Amino acid sequence: MATITSHFANVKSTVHFPCISNQRRSHLPPLKPTTVRMSMTQQTRNSQPYGASVQADIEAHIKQFLTIKEPLAVFEPMHHLVFNAPKTTVPALCLAACELVGGQRHRAISAASALLLMEAATYTHEHLPLTDRPKPVVKNHVFGPNVELLTVDGIVPFGFELLARSDDGENSERILRVMVEISRAVGSGGVVDAQYRKTMDTRSDGEEVCHVEEIMRVVEKYEGELHSCAAVCGGVLGGGSEDEIERLRKIGFCFGMIQGMAKRGFNEGNEVNEARNLALQELKFFKDKELDAIKILLNI
Amino acid sequence: MATITSHFANVKSTVHFPCISNQRRSHLPPLKPTTVRMSMTQQTRNSQPYGASVQADIEAHIKQFLTIKEPLAVFEPMHHLVFNAPKTTVPALCLAACELVGGQRHRAISAASALLLMEAATYTHEHLPLTDRPKPVVKNHVFGPNVELLTVDGIVPFGFELLARSDDGENSERILRVMVEISRAVGSGGVVDAQYRKTMDTRSDGEEVCHVEEIMRVVEKYEGELHSCAAVCGGVLGGGSEDEIERLRKIGFCFGMIQGMAKRGFNEGNEVNEARNLALQELKFFKDKELDAIKILLNI
Repeated sequence: MATITSHFANVKSTVHFPCISNQRRSHLPPLKPTTVRMSMTQQTRNSQPYGASVQADIEAHIKQFLTIKEPLAVFEPMHHLVFNAPKTTVPALCLAACELVGGQRHRAISAASALLLMEAATYTHEHLPLTDRPKPVVKNHVFGPNVELLTVDGIVPFGFELLARSDDGENSERILRVMVEISRAVGSGGVVDAQYRKTMDTRSDGEEVCHVEEIMRVVEKYEGELHSCAAVCGGVLGGGSEDEIERLRKIGFCFGMIQGMAKRGFNEGNEVNEARNLALQELKFFKDKELDAIKILLNI
Repeated sequence: MATITSHFANVKSTVHFPCISNQRRSHLPPLKPTTVRMSMTQQTRNSQPYGASVQADIEAHIKQFLTIKEPLAVFEPMHHLVFNAPKTTVPALCLAACELVGGQRHRAISAASALLLMEAATYTHEHLPLTDRPKPVVKNHVFGPNVELLTVDGIVPFGFELLARSDDGENSERILRVMVEISRAVGSGGVVDAQYRKTMDTRSDGEEVCHVEEIMRVVEKYEGELHSCAAVCGGVLGGGSEDEIERLRKIGFCFGMIQGMAKRGFNEGNEVNEARNLALQELKFFKDKELDAIKILLNI
């Protein structure tokens, strides 16, 4: 079986965007982020778990711009599908990574929101009842397939819009870099590829075929790439160095692998240990920075 | 009935992004555009119609980045659905608008490509057979609904990626502005709204109900907004002034209305004449620039 470590031998670094100068280049009024709460270390000392705190910040940010307005037939389902999709650690990891490299949480709030929106869209499409899908989908559908389909067609561009509008005149190149990362993670080379693989591995009676190699490939392309992307986005928007960003890419990937394997019943074993050790090793690089919160978030 | 002119009374200007300085701020290698062909005036003198020429340029640009590669199960349907969707004048208008404000065609080729991709995605989803859609869809489906659904989930982020990667270090803020325009045009306030309205106006036997007011509203949100967006994107990326860009917004909208009305059998009448006259009036502003080609493209 391919190991977690060997995955990185094939990882090609993506488009390189250098840090931009601090010169103010725009009079664009940026989207105002929601009030930023306490820092990570403050949070970990507090009773509210860090993950719940950042999730609340992200949802509050989205709610600022996703109000229930006319046409209600469009915005009510959008609101419902976004806030009722299962929560994952992907958006929270984006903010945690931003803070880990010394950035303020609000710098990455739009990217974290975009990631939450993309995941809600993916979840909705995955559970859309289609005539050629092998098994009935076990989900209560509040809306019909037509409305769910169209709603997702609204959610995805809304995510990109939120991100594009977050430029404060100083970070447009970083935002474009983050867009490339998100597009790739959710697109044909990432989540969509994983979804195809899942479909191909499903028998006509609806049971998934359990080849460990193939499951690992799906986890890599799904939870692995998504968490990796989230950590990179946070690192880029937090102003991290290229070295920090690449370490975050590995940490995010390892954490995503652990999450994805656990979701499929692999809670222990060589792969899980390998991923945990690799993540811990990379985290040592950040030893002088706020580490408690991200360790709690990553549960490692 | 609301007139074309009255539409603009309610148009709010979108986020304002000022022109950025010429200072080179990035070492990012931009995506190389395909070889740019002859100018608009050269084209109109040529036997190849302008629209066909720019369409060929746009498709060639997309083909550079959308190669048929592994996993074939992902990229073959993507290629097929992108290049077999019906052609519209939206992407061509983007390039024509860029050239009209004095920009070189390659500046807007990625935005035009993104628009073509978004339209292919929209078309595919519109024709996806769903259990709660009122009538069987009259289209030959090469792939099953599951593959078509997933493929579109890959096409949309690919469009945004193409656009994000087109930054040459000098136009990142313009690209972000264009992303906001495209997100809005294809999203919940634009095409998705039109699609909801179309669904609501379709009886259980599949016949569309023909209330002229409602048809006009659909045309506004669909063809009107899409063409308007295309013209604005071309104007922004071509370096047009804010005044030129707002005139292009009106020209694009009027042209989209004419196209959308013609598609629904309204080839003549007050609304068509009003839209044509308004577009011609706005085009006079560009009298010293290359006008022949855009008039041929717009057929006005």
